[in-house]
Amino acid sequence: MAKKQKSKKSKKKKYVYFFSKGQSDGNSKMKNLLGGKGANLAEMCRIGLPVPPGFTITTEVCKLYYDSNKKYPSGLKEEAELNIKKLEKATGKKFGDNKDPLLVSVRSGAAVSMPGMMDTILNLGLTDEAVRGLADLTKNPRFAWDSYRRFIQMFGDVAMGVEHHAFEHELEEVKRRIAKDKNIPNAESLVQEALNKLVPDTALTVEDLKELVSRYEEVYKKHTGSPFPQKPREQLWHAIDAVFGSWNNDRAIAYREIHNIKGLLGTAVNVQTMVFGNMGQDSGTGVGFTRDPSTGDDDLYGEFLMNAQGEDVVAGIRTPLHIDEMKKSDKKMYDQLATIRKKLEKHYKEMQDFEFTIEKGKLYMLQTRNGKRTAHAAVKIAVDMVTKEKLISKEEAVLRIQPEQIDQLLHPMFDAEEEKKGDIFSRAGLPASPGAAVGQAVFSAKDAEQWKESGKEVILCRLETSPEDIRGMHAANGILTARGGMTSHAAVVARGWGKCCVAGAGDITMELAKKQMRCGNQTINEGDWISLNGSKGIVYLGKIKTIPPKMTGPFGIIMKWADDIRKLGVRTNADTPKDTAVAIEFGAEGIGLCRTEHMFFEGERILSFRKMILVAQKVKNLRDAIAAETDSKKRKALEEELKAPLTQYLKALEELLPLQRKDFEGIFEALKGYPCTIRFLDPPLHEFLPHDEKGQKELADAMGIDFDYVKNTVDSLHEFNPMLGHRGCRLGITYPEISEMQARAIIEAALNVKAKGIKVCPEIMIPLVGNVKELQLQKEAVLDAIEKIKKERKLKKLPFEVKIGTMIEVPRAAITADEVARTAEFFSFGTNDLTQMSCGFSRDDAGKFLADYLNLGIYDHDPFQSLDANGVGKLVRMATELGKKTRKDLKLGICGEHGGDPQSVRFCHEVGLTYVSCSPFRVPIARLSAAQAVLEEKGAKKGKKKK
Amino acid sequence: MAKKQKSKKSKKKKYVYFFSKGQSDGNSKMKNLLGGKGANLAEMCRIGLPVPPGFTITTEVCKLYYDSNKKYPSGLKEEAELNIKKLEKATGKKFGDNKDPLLVSVRSGAAVSMPGMMDTILNLGLTDEAVRGLADLTKNPRFAWDSYRRFIQMFGDVAMGVEHHAFEHELEEVKRRIAKDKNIPNAESLVQEALNKLVPDTALTVEDLKELVSRYEEVYKKHTGSPFPQKPREQLWHAIDAVFGSWNNDRAIAYREIHNIKGLLGTAVNVQTMVFGNMGQDSGTGVGFTRDPSTGDDDLYGEFLMNAQGEDVVAGIRTPLHIDEMKKSDKKMYDQLATIRKKLEKHYKEMQDFEFTIEKGKLYMLQTRNGKRTAHAAVKIAVDMVTKEKLISKEEAVLRIQPEQIDQLLHPMFDAEEEKKGDIFSRAGLPASPGAAVGQAVFSAKDAEQWKESGKEVILCRLETSPEDIRGMHAANGILTARGGMTSHAAVVARGWGKCCVAGAGDITMELAKKQMRCGNQTINEGDWISLNGSKGIVYLGKIKTIPPKMTGPFGIIMKWADDIRKLGVRTNADTPKDTAVAIEFGAEGIGLCRTEHMFFEGERILSFRKMILVAQKVKNLRDAIAAETDSKKRKALEEELKAPLTQYLKALEELLPLQRKDFEGIFEALKGYPCTIRFLDPPLHEFLPHDEKGQKELADAMGIDFDYVKNTVDSLHEFNPMLGHRGCRLGITYPEISEMQARAIIEAALNVKAKGIKVCPEIMIPLVGNVKELQLQKEAVLDAIEKIKKERKLKKLPFEVKIGTMIEVPRAAITADEVARTAEFFSFGTNDLTQMSCGFSRDDAGKFLADYLNLGIYDHDPFQSLDANGVGKLVRMATELGKKTRKDLKLGICGEHGGDPQSVRFCHEVGLTYVSCSPFRVPIARLSAAQAVLEEKGAKKGKKKK
Repeated sequence: MAKKQKSKKSKKKKYVYFFSKGQSDGNSKMKNLLGGKGANLAEMCRIGLPVPPGFTITTEVCKLYYDSNKKYPSGLKEEAELNIKKLEKATGKKFGDNKDPLLVSVRSGAAVSMPGMMDTILNLGLTDEAVRGLADLTKNPRFAWDSYRRFIQMFGDVAMGVEHHAFEHELEEVKRRIAKDKNIPNAESLVQEALNKLVPDTALTVEDLKELVSRYEEVYKKHTGSPFPQKPREQLWHAIDAVFGSWNNDRAIAYREIHNIKGLLGTAVNVQTMVFGNMGQDSGTGVGFTRDPSTGDDDLYGEFLMNAQGEDVVAGIRTPLHIDEMKKSDKKMYDQLATIRKKLEKHYKEMQDFEFTIEKGKLYMLQTRNGKRTAHAAVKIAVDMVTKEKLISKEEAVLRIQPEQIDQLLHPMFDAEEEKKGDIFSRAGLPASPGAAVGQAVFSAKDAEQWKESGKEVILCRLETSPEDIRGMHAANGILTARGGMTSHAAVVARGWGKCCVAGAGDITMELAKKQMRCGNQTINEGDWISLNGSKGIVYLGKIKTIPPKMTGPFGIIMKWADDIRKLGVRTNADTPKDTAVAIEFGAEGIGLCRTEHMFFEGERILSFRKMILVAQKVKNLRDAIAAETDSKKRKALEEELKAPLTQYLKALEELLPLQRKDFEGIFEALKGYPCTIRFLDPPLHEFLPHDEKGQKELADAMGIDFDYVKNTVDSLHEFNPMLGHRGCRLGITYPEISEMQARAIIEAALNVKAKGIKVCPEIMIPLVGNVKELQLQKEAVLDAIEKIKKERKLKKLPFEVKIGTMIEVPRAAITADEVARTAEFFSFGTNDLTQMSCGFSRDDAGKFLADYLNLGIYDHDPFQSLDANGVGKLVRMATELGKKTRKDLKLGICGEHGGDPQSVRFCHEVGLTYVSCSPFRVPIARLSAAQAVLEEKGAKKGKKKK
Repeated sequence: MAKKQKSKKSKKKKYVYFFSKGQSDGNSKMKNLLGGKGANLAEMCRIGLPVPPGFTITTEVCKLYYDSNKKYPSGLKEEAELNIKKLEKATGKKFGDNKDPLLVSVRSGAAVSMPGMMDTILNLGLTDEAVRGLADLTKNPRFAWDSYRRFIQMFGDVAMGVEHHAFEHELEEVKRRIAKDKNIPNAESLVQEALNKLVPDTALTVEDLKELVSRYEEVYKKHTGSPFPQKPREQLWHAIDAVFGSWNNDRAIAYREIHNIKGLLGTAVNVQTMVFGNMGQDSGTGVGFTRDPSTGDDDLYGEFLMNAQGEDVVAGIRTPLHIDEMKKSDKKMYDQLATIRKKLEKHYKEMQDFEFTIEKGKLYMLQTRNGKRTAHAAVKIAVDMVTKEKLISKEEAVLRIQPEQIDQLLHPMFDAEEEKKGDIFSRAGLPASPGAAVGQAVFSAKDAEQWKESGKEVILCRLETSPEDIRGMHAANGILTARGGMTSHAAVVARGWGKCCVAGAGDITMELAKKQMRCGNQTINEGDWISLNGSKGIVYLGKIKTIPPKMTGPFGIIMKWADDIRKLGVRTNADTPKDTAVAIEFGAEGIGLCRTEHMFFEGERILSFRKMILVAQKVKNLRDAIAAETDSKKRKALEEELKAPLTQYLKALEELLPLQRKDFEGIFEALKGYPCTIRFLDPPLHEFLPHDEKGQKELADAMGIDFDYVKNTVDSLHEFNPMLGHRGCRLGITYPEISEMQARAIIEAALNVKAKGIKVCPEIMIPLVGNVKELQLQKEAVLDAIEKIKKERKLKKLPFEVKIGTMIEVPRAAITADEVARTAEFFSFGTNDLTQMSCGFSRDDAGKFLADYLNLGIYDHDPFQSLDANGVGKLVRMATELGKKTRKDLKLGICGEHGGDPQSVRFCHEVGLTYVSCSPFRVPIARLSAAQAVLEEKGAKKGKKKK
């Protein structure tokens, strides 16, 4: 430790980096040290662009500042002073000179752009004396005094915490005085807006501005207890303090939390010579993009204002002009900008977003950075840069697209302008399934169905949804729930369908009985139009215009590139031919999870299914009694008693068989030969039964049985922790006939489709296995069913391969994966449940504390959204290794929600899974992420080699 | 494969083992091959005891028989024939001879005694001809014909499946005929019992018996379709077929299932020369024990009958005499038996249970085996054999006691005779907590308390219990529930207290509103006396006499020996000073789990605690709102709004502090310096609140707040899967003030008790940790509380050590135990929850399928009763290894229900834990099991060395 400190001391650290055209201490690769802004200013200087000179104090200083209780490291001030000298030399002006003062801006700038921090102080260096010098020098006293009063306000507000409002008040007072002087009526009582219209800032004379300066100086003194500092160096260090201080203000902390920004040292401080866009009609300011950020078109794009400073553009007082206007008004300047645009792109090989200022006809670059763009533009730009400009490789293009962003390309979206004007009902919901949806509010699944049937467009609004709501959910354009998280039933089902969903909008009170919902003082009644933004979690009152998704050319190209690169297969989670077709369209290479339970909710099936459940209970109870009975006579009597319900039970299953077989036929056909992993019945049986007396009575009537029997059966099926209850393969073990029926439906469907000349690859997946013996028993049941079918159809062997495997979702299965792999021909990691059981989180309940957990940094991410690599991931890794030890060619997939999460896809690649499976609308995301995982791995290996 | 078969052929297997006095192919160590009976017959021959000669067909033959579709291995018949020859030589008689026929018995006999199998066929070898020879030879035609008719009936019934009843019917007919002949009135219509009294078997003449033989032969032919076989060899092979066939009959399979008997090859068949106890007054039969099986006294103990065969004793027609009678009637025979008793014990070094027959004044031994005995006798015998007879070592004595059995020594039990006469209400319950209890039935916890207060003895009868019932449960003598398993709330709490409990008696319908329960057609009303047998799960109507437990001398001695041997520490799970004292009395070396939540239910505390919960919700909601609020004004308003509830919240906690502190003081005092692991609040908060409207109204009234607020809070706390919900350390993280209060209560209590001169070793345990960061945060909260107390009391350091550790009960914690151990100073495996989460079983719900799982062999044992070593155990092992890697001296305990299960204790020893912790009444069991684990390990090592 002591040694390390010594070596630190011996090799003096550099804290300040100078930049000036053609001469820079730093470069664009030093973002961590100089911040994004500082690094790019240095880089622009290096490539000869016109940048006002300045210097950057490093982010390391920020860290040291906090580490040592807000003290600067020794030597910093001296180093800064040296840089001020260099700046004076570069500009030929003096800092603190009263005749020709060197004025600077002070800006924060971390490695990641962070709106929460202190932004900018301009005109620093002006004093009561220097303002006069500036007035003389520029022969523009109005400009000088206006600059000074702006500086005082900014400095007071931003650096010293004087309330903005206090300065505004003085400006208002002066304006009222002017209004009175001008005999404007009611000058005393005019509302501020009217006053500003009648007396704009531009109406202030030099004398008015002088008065304002002295009033501002009074405000400053009153609020800070000290007079406005008259030494530029004092001003400078106050400003630097403020920048560093803003690194840990609440807004900045909140921003970093919300955007999950971690591991930064701190912010840098940029001190840069001022240039002025407000020195007359030959001056101006603007922002530009090297390409159109919404379309991706290869054109200079931007806005500018003449005779204005940057803050005027931001304040929105004057409307800026489109950059094309400049082509007409100042062709030379436009051409200069166009040349710079080309130079920037050629150098950065990325679309840039830059700021510029024109001072008396001379162009200065103030900032450049990678530009934000729509998903559409991102894809087009990346593809163009490969195919047209040949700036980057295909691999780089693939790496440039944020996987999450392309989700936008797959769903209808709101027209952005229309949405801005939207009337918000609630913004507390989660962006559970992206896209936009518009419809009339309904409050029950049944209503949703009926309204839809009568030709209406509806949004289904529920406290939460359950499998019983499935048809209503399907009928709705969008789903809104007041409870539940990103992996609640509504969210999972909606994402599966690519249907818009806002979930867990906790501020909404659902009054389902009244068919209305309330939020704050607003109420929405049945039939009211509402609009959901499932990408943001916002609910609007009324209708907002939507724009349909486009599968544009470049998107297809980049996906093709991704496919060429990736090693992971990408499958989809789909339960219907329609979803399957959508997913195949999106590039899925098969189904990784076909849930069979949703199928039972359609149409009349639910009644057959309920009938089966009710009689199955009777059968099970009698079987248990028989097993326990040692008296052979009593046993025989019980066996006699069993006969009737057993017949009913088998008949109910027979009724379900053709329905389910038809479902599988549709899916096999839609798959066109791709493999299909079909999971046996998974949820506990009580989920299929009505829990309210009314529903139970209806069911009893429909079946012609006793209400009490229905009620008692539902009661006896009740579970304290259904998540850990009688579900998954446990159902198949206690009701082997259900498994047999499902196996038969799958195999018969496959035979029928195969007979049409379509290739079929059924894979049967046994859920919730914790012990290899469960799998053995269920595998035997499947093989028995196959043998029976072969006998019936007189087949020597099936004309296709059937794989039998399991989900790994119970921790015990992961730990004993070597044993499980003896029987399982494939594993599919069910990481939703594996996360629930490994972490001990019920995903339906975890909302109560998970937010705290993320805030406190206990988990970096919601483990239900992004696989908990350090915990749950260890089990996945362990199961993979153990499984492969037993069975070298074990096929390994993942079919939890994580299969569509970019970070989790990367993990799956790294662990060496065979494929990921996700909802159809996330298939392109998974394809891209899988490709990026390969490229990042290569990059990491290269990096290691270099070391 | 081919090779193996060859080698099998080349080295011929021995299938039949001969035995005769002083000459035996087998010995007592060959139980697996010869069965228990066969091995001991051979051994008795070896040590020169008088055993009728015979031979044993091995269990291996049974396996081969089943493996090859009920065919015998080649060579078997020839080998059997050779042995028949040997037998003929040894006895001087011929099998199939009509003059002096060799008669044999055929008996089954597996390695483990199994009542479900075919028992015995006697007198095999008799035919229509041979019976006459026997009559002539013995000059006792009655004996000969009686033997024959018995043989036909036994052979027909047992070997050939002819209904017993069919033979009985013929006997009855003959007796009626005799009665008629004797002119007994109403002979035709006498009930069987009266008929048997008037015409006993002994009244049958030779002619009657001859008639009966011919009737029996008719019955046999009618039922089997063949005449009664007249070739002894044919008889013999039918009988052998029947023995092997009985191995897989339903009763035998059921017996093996129920007693969890696994891994046996099959049964052996013993063919042995007949000796007859019914050859006159100088013949007889009996059973003996080498010591008194109920007291353990060192005396010959047994019963006998003169002129009788063994089956007469079993049938209970004549009452056998106590062996002491023989001392008077036949001192020589008695002395001979007494000598044999000594010889047996000296040879076997174990108490023996033997059968003997006297034929015409000559004694024969027919069987010996280790004798069953009461726990009391087992302990006394083991200790006597060490200290008095010096037959065995202390280690052997310790190994001889079945840990589960000693539970009997710790609880009051029913008087066995009285219990036999008891009127059973239900026998469907689980033996949830052993012992006996008698009391008047009450149906609510409140009633239990009130009745108890008014001096009554009560049994609390509930559908299931919840923490709210805790005071009523405590007031009751015993607890009966209709729902829930061995680890349901009622069962766990009752075992903890050593209170009798029958749980999950599923055939009882609780009509709580009517204050009654029904089972079948019986009803128990409030106030009716009932008796519970918690060791068997039986409920009786009325009162049954109980016997109090005795802690006898030998019990103390053997426990001391166990303590000297064992390496594992044994602690207890206790929450009160009383339980603590009981556990210390039973040998506990500290508390391994002190739950703090039960403390909150006592007296007025529940109200304070509920108050705290209700206001804590307000505080949490406001804090969440503040964290989410970016507008500083709104934030300030919220902060203002927070002040009042925050004050109330802290005040509610302050009210709880002294109460909890006092609890801990009591426990520290009772512990007398032993360590105490105290777990922070664990269950979800909604468990503490009333869930019914009435209770909520009462609470609202008591607190003077709005009913709606109470109801809404309860609703908002509802969880879908409370097991995986907002509980354990998650509470401490969202409500850090609760943890702080608990830490303060513990430390202050420790200081107060220490001040009295009593040593204290508090260990604070954070529950449900899944991520080391949770533990870090809670550890910080504890350390902060300690710092505060030190400041307040002006202490430089605490006058005792405080360890801070965690439960390992979430799989993620086990997987990341290396990280967790960085912060945890000890681990305690919470194997209840670890099992729930690793296996994905909710222990409240698993009853629905676990029985099937055990029947199907998916799990060998209920994983909640005996640790699932192959699955959950792997996690325990992994966590142990990972934890020790980080922290060499990591203290490792287990505090789940498994801590008191012998098999699990063995596992804990093997894995290298520091201690196990269990409920007070299981402490002696754990001590003994821990010692046996050491001895078994040594034995296994020795065994390996020998190999």
